[in-house]
Amino acid sequence: MSACARRLDDIEPFHVMELLARARELESQGRSIVHMEIGEPDFPTPEPITAAAVRALGEHAMHYTSALGLPALRLAIAGHYRERYGVAVSPERIVVTAGSSAALLLAAGVLIDPGREVLLADPGYPCNRHFVRFVEGRAVGIPVDAGCGYQLTAQAVARHWTPATAAVLLASPSNPTGTLVERAALADIAGCVRERGGTLIVDEIYHGLVYQGDAATALEISDEAFVVNSFSKYFGMTGWRLGWLVVPPDYLRAVEKLQQNLFIAASTPAQYAALAAFAPETRAILEQRRAEFQRRRDYLLPALRALGFGIPVTPQGAFYLYADCSRFTEDSQTFARDLLEQAGVAVTPGLDFGHYQPQRHLRFAYTTGLEQLREGVRRLREHLG
Amino acid sequence: MSACARRLDDIEPFHVMELLARARELESQGRSIVHMEIGEPDFPTPEPITAAAVRALGEHAMHYTSALGLPALRLAIAGHYRERYGVAVSPERIVVTAGSSAALLLAAGVLIDPGREVLLADPGYPCNRHFVRFVEGRAVGIPVDAGCGYQLTAQAVARHWTPATAAVLLASPSNPTGTLVERAALADIAGCVRERGGTLIVDEIYHGLVYQGDAATALEISDEAFVVNSFSKYFGMTGWRLGWLVVPPDYLRAVEKLQQNLFIAASTPAQYAALAAFAPETRAILEQRRAEFQRRRDYLLPALRALGFGIPVTPQGAFYLYADCSRFTEDSQTFARDLLEQAGVAVTPGLDFGHYQPQRHLRFAYTTGLEQLREGVRRLREHLG
Repeated sequence: MSACARRLDDIEPFHVMELLARARELESQGRSIVHMEIGEPDFPTPEPITAAAVRALGEHAMHYTSALGLPALRLAIAGHYRERYGVAVSPERIVVTAGSSAALLLAAGVLIDPGREVLLADPGYPCNRHFVRFVEGRAVGIPVDAGCGYQLTAQAVARHWTPATAAVLLASPSNPTGTLVERAALADIAGCVRERGGTLIVDEIYHGLVYQGDAATALEISDEAFVVNSFSKYFGMTGWRLGWLVVPPDYLRAVEKLQQNLFIAASTPAQYAALAAFAPETRAILEQRRAEFQRRRDYLLPALRALGFGIPVTPQGAFYLYADCSRFTEDSQTFARDLLEQAGVAVTPGLDFGHYQPQRHLRFAYTTGLEQLREGVRRLREHLG
Repeated sequence: MSACARRLDDIEPFHVMELLARARELESQGRSIVHMEIGEPDFPTPEPITAAAVRALGEHAMHYTSALGLPALRLAIAGHYRERYGVAVSPERIVVTAGSSAALLLAAGVLIDPGREVLLADPGYPCNRHFVRFVEGRAVGIPVDAGCGYQLTAQAVARHWTPATAAVLLASPSNPTGTLVERAALADIAGCVRERGGTLIVDEIYHGLVYQGDAATALEISDEAFVVNSFSKYFGMTGWRLGWLVVPPDYLRAVEKLQQNLFIAASTPAQYAALAAFAPETRAILEQRRAEFQRRRDYLLPALRALGFGIPVTPQGAFYLYADCSRFTEDSQTFARDLLEQAGVAVTPGLDFGHYQPQRHLRFAYTTGLEQLREGVRRLREHLG
């Protein structure tokens, strides 16, 4: 590996994948494992979306779409902003991407020169800092804890801003903590970034999966933010790899040429499928699933607290609980391995989410059914008890 | 656009897209346009592939696959190398990617540090140099002409090698010239690169679309090359965005973690669909199409030569003819615009393929039927005549 580019030294693998591989191995030996490590809903793609794909496969040649995406899909996404948030977003500003991954890479590529800094919350989704590193920028993780709801504040942004800072990346709801940036805080941060001549990037891929309060989109506040979203989580289309990026008007031409060169376009069958994502019959299915996620959260949160895990802030969204396990261990990675091997419960150690107190934290995903969650809690109780 | 990262200054849009947009505009006004600008086969995805997708949509939840791809697909691709080339490639070295675009980005990301150089042929596929630029490397275009079959040679590589050179990128068959790197030349180049401690990257996405001779894969020669391939061109799956990268064993772990972070995985429906790409009934369809492309080439090549276009080397593959138009113009871009506006024939000016004599060249794509090609030639004759 000595011949690898230096950026590979700073880009970490998903540590949880080793744990997942071990879990699969144990299962193949006949062991029962409760999976609370997986960041993917257990539900299949909603039937109306799949049916739309099947229809399109019969009707269209599956050639490339234009780089920015199917016009009808860009229009449908604009309609989603109008209906769900009451916000007018021109379809011309919407770029359909190969998942939110591609959207984040486009945003980083367009905004970040080598050596420039991006401020983001630690803990956070690890790929965020890796996209920045990939384009030779520097991701600056700002430690966040329960006191600020595990989110950046305008004060924190101002404190960490340097002449090298180019952008701030927020994720609301956050992975791994499930917490939101409230509307007022979002406006404050947007103002702070604008005053300093920087750019705000907001990851909204867990929008729709919010169980109390109301997730504000950055588009309500500013036309100058890059907003990343996805068909993966709320819309149940993980494997299709489809998302979108809302681009400030001044950057549209740059994003378009980068999309042409790096991706050509997003997947055509996925784009046709997603046309059904906003249909009333799909929405009904998705809202049932949202209610089910809420039931799971409302069971798992008090159950983990009762076991002695520290979850000081009630997460409003996503499908994660970020739990302080320091009552049981000072080494969450060994602890997670023990939980898997001895108790048959798979969870993700904090290491996957950053450098701020990872050894004290685990992420529990409620991406499996209530029965499984109850069994997981029973096993945890027995193991810890 | 002043706030854009500097790399955007060096990444060019697909110039042909403006021409294509103008062609669509003319068509919407009732004009007839013969399309010889489009780098995408006119055939739809073969029915057995589409049928496999439809089946999979009924049977699977369309969750993420593992980062490296469906095991069955990686196995099928390894089988393809065994059957088609008689080469043993371990499925573990095969990474399924979001088109060859993602494969090229992964290879560039793993190999190229800022400031390092990649040697490649000019003219060539423009995105190749942009992938290098995207990761802050420097693409060094080596002018190639008819004398060397529009391909690099070991001599040219040796001559342009500097201490900053990290890799050589070949494309065989080439876009825009359709020419091959012959087996002996490929071995010479591989040896030259190895001696200098560099890495060879070979783009083989037009393999299968070869009409005379025999395209060697770099895998016959070396296990140390990165080999890029795609389901887009020969297999007729452009819009699905699916390709693969064969990775030298030492780089597998690095490619895997980059894939996890940048892409998560390639599209799941596309991967299931591609399982049918190697089936005998699909192969039969693809070979009929190959024969049709050959008929088109065998018509268009002498027809363009008869009109006065210079095509000194008979291209062995892909679906392009790279034609010297200097008998008619010293400005291929204005010439292409005139052909569109006045003759109703759309072709791609050389500008999209590099900096070496673009103003003297046009690319004709035979991605439309024989009838259309005949009509295009008739219009050209009238226009030039």
